[in-house]
Amino acid sequence: MTRPCNDSFLRALLMEPTAHTPVWLMRQAGRYLPEYRETRARAGSFMQLCMNPGLACEVTLQPLARYDLDAAILFSDILTVPDAMGLGLYFTDGEGPRFERPLREEWAIRDLSAPDPWDHLRYVMDAVTEIRRALNNSVPLIGFSGSPYTLACYMVEGASSTDYRRIKSMLYDRPDLLHHILAVTANAVGAYLNAQIESGAQAVMIFDSWGGSLSPAAYREFSLHYMQRVLATLIREKDGERVPSIVFTKGGGLWLESIADIGCDAVGLDWTIDIGEARRRVGDRVALQGNIDPAVLFASPATIAAEARKVLDGYGAAQTGHVFNLGHGISQFTPPEHVTALVDAVHQHSRLLRQKCS
Amino acid sequence: MTRPCNDSFLRALLMEPTAHTPVWLMRQAGRYLPEYRETRARAGSFMQLCMNPGLACEVTLQPLARYDLDAAILFSDILTVPDAMGLGLYFTDGEGPRFERPLREEWAIRDLSAPDPWDHLRYVMDAVTEIRRALNNSVPLIGFSGSPYTLACYMVEGASSTDYRRIKSMLYDRPDLLHHILAVTANAVGAYLNAQIESGAQAVMIFDSWGGSLSPAAYREFSLHYMQRVLATLIREKDGERVPSIVFTKGGGLWLESIADIGCDAVGLDWTIDIGEARRRVGDRVALQGNIDPAVLFASPATIAAEARKVLDGYGAAQTGHVFNLGHGISQFTPPEHVTALVDAVHQHSRLLRQKCS
Repeated sequence: MTRPCNDSFLRALLMEPTAHTPVWLMRQAGRYLPEYRETRARAGSFMQLCMNPGLACEVTLQPLARYDLDAAILFSDILTVPDAMGLGLYFTDGEGPRFERPLREEWAIRDLSAPDPWDHLRYVMDAVTEIRRALNNSVPLIGFSGSPYTLACYMVEGASSTDYRRIKSMLYDRPDLLHHILAVTANAVGAYLNAQIESGAQAVMIFDSWGGSLSPAAYREFSLHYMQRVLATLIREKDGERVPSIVFTKGGGLWLESIADIGCDAVGLDWTIDIGEARRRVGDRVALQGNIDPAVLFASPATIAAEARKVLDGYGAAQTGHVFNLGHGISQFTPPEHVTALVDAVHQHSRLLRQKCS
Repeated sequence: MTRPCNDSFLRALLMEPTAHTPVWLMRQAGRYLPEYRETRARAGSFMQLCMNPGLACEVTLQPLARYDLDAAILFSDILTVPDAMGLGLYFTDGEGPRFERPLREEWAIRDLSAPDPWDHLRYVMDAVTEIRRALNNSVPLIGFSGSPYTLACYMVEGASSTDYRRIKSMLYDRPDLLHHILAVTANAVGAYLNAQIESGAQAVMIFDSWGGSLSPAAYREFSLHYMQRVLATLIREKDGERVPSIVFTKGGGLWLESIADIGCDAVGLDWTIDIGEARRRVGDRVALQGNIDPAVLFASPATIAAEARKVLDGYGAAQTGHVFNLGHGISQFTPPEHVTALVDAVHQHSRLLRQKCS
């Protein structure tokens, strides 16, 4: 058995009782932390930071040294997969990620193949191994990937987009081409997550950042379906322990029931849905992760604690099956001391709720 | 009686039967049209175009000359109201609108007052009068405003924002200040829409572009409540005709029932919600406007027609109470001839559905 000392995160994902509601924050190792900015400067570039297992391990652990978090998440970027597919990822200051060779031509799309994660993404597996060793079974380590549709958005647009003009033109006029990209990418994502699990990731999360930009029918056909395919290929048990999976479609609140049905253990929620309503809608089928507005962290510590209590109260009396998180990644403008107020409020208030209940 | 010859748009908003489903497009007078770009160049700047009633009338009519649209919408900008409140609106190339004096200090917030629309926004009323005269009762004219919360976002942030850091800090830490801004702005919006109605607008629409960035509780308190206040002050009848109102919160699909309850005649839908599901959720309380993905217009005319038919079929057999529209403003990259395919498909297929039904 390799369950970590603090296994509250894994237990909550599996709907098992916990002494408190576990909490971690999307993008918890990031620019809001001065120690992160220091390591990032030392690395040279963002990608050099991702590709150096020692430095990736260092920044993964930084938020755990500051805060009483219940999980660690691999420090990496969702675009490592298309980069390994040969698209040539690079970062420009202020404009975010870009690809040198975006997928625009039919021949390039037909040429696409899933990379061997043990070869082209070896640096990620080395980071996972090193982080697991450094965590020393204190808290679980989360591996992750972008969803096939979200990765395809970047691959076709060549950068982040506001209108998704190119990929949506393809979706409506050449669905065959987009389905081909998504099928290959789903294979790549499945193999990538399995390699992370083999390397030591104890749970995995699929980030569907852009599925929420689709119509309900297009979402089911081009995003949800391929996440279901990924989930179907995942290793479900490692060293005798279940490896739970979390699916998070930002802006997917209208489609919760469908997301809960694709074989994941937990569904991530952004902050636009009431978490109590979400629980009623999905019943006991899945755990829920979320969902405070990350902008709450700009407020005073007292307000942060009050808003955290509202989410916990809103979840309902039982408190089983809830992983507390932000509804989106933490902002770079968050004062680091405000995170302490959030994490401590979640632990204190969720313990109190359990006492009231029992 | 002053109903226009083609009153299908007004009838649909009032849940009365129509021979076809009326259609208009958000931002139908805009940059995708070469004739608009020509007039815009002649005007000098975007604001000079808004402030010149003759030119505003010219661009309002341009899409009606090209397409068989069932309504005209006043050409203007939602930020004319905060500009009239003294914030100093200006436009920068590529960065969108900005305010010279964003609302940051408590004294400036306490100083805020609702402008007299007949004085500071006279140019808008003159445009409405001139457009009504030019339309010559062919199709109805829609007046509009931003919602109080959406206007407050721009007023506090000073520009468009991705994280709404400043207004959300105020929302959580100084709700009293934000409530003051919203109360004054709601008064301003109510007076502004009433002046448009007095000048000839035959329906009004409130654009809540940023309410969807809020948590459900914050949405109710800071956006929905103030739209309800605006609606309560509106002139409901003019020259013996009901003046219907439409409320559109982008990203508000989870909150439809609440939006339908604030006293509007119709609710606008973005493309992330299934329109049949929306109809079932709100019952017969309100008409629905929407909701095809504007990105569909990048596809081929045949695909556009097929997708338009899906929305009409999805709405359900009765077809009463539906105004066809995009789920968001038309993109500047839309080929103008593609709009013809959309408008004609809506008219043809909706006539066919009515024949099948009767």
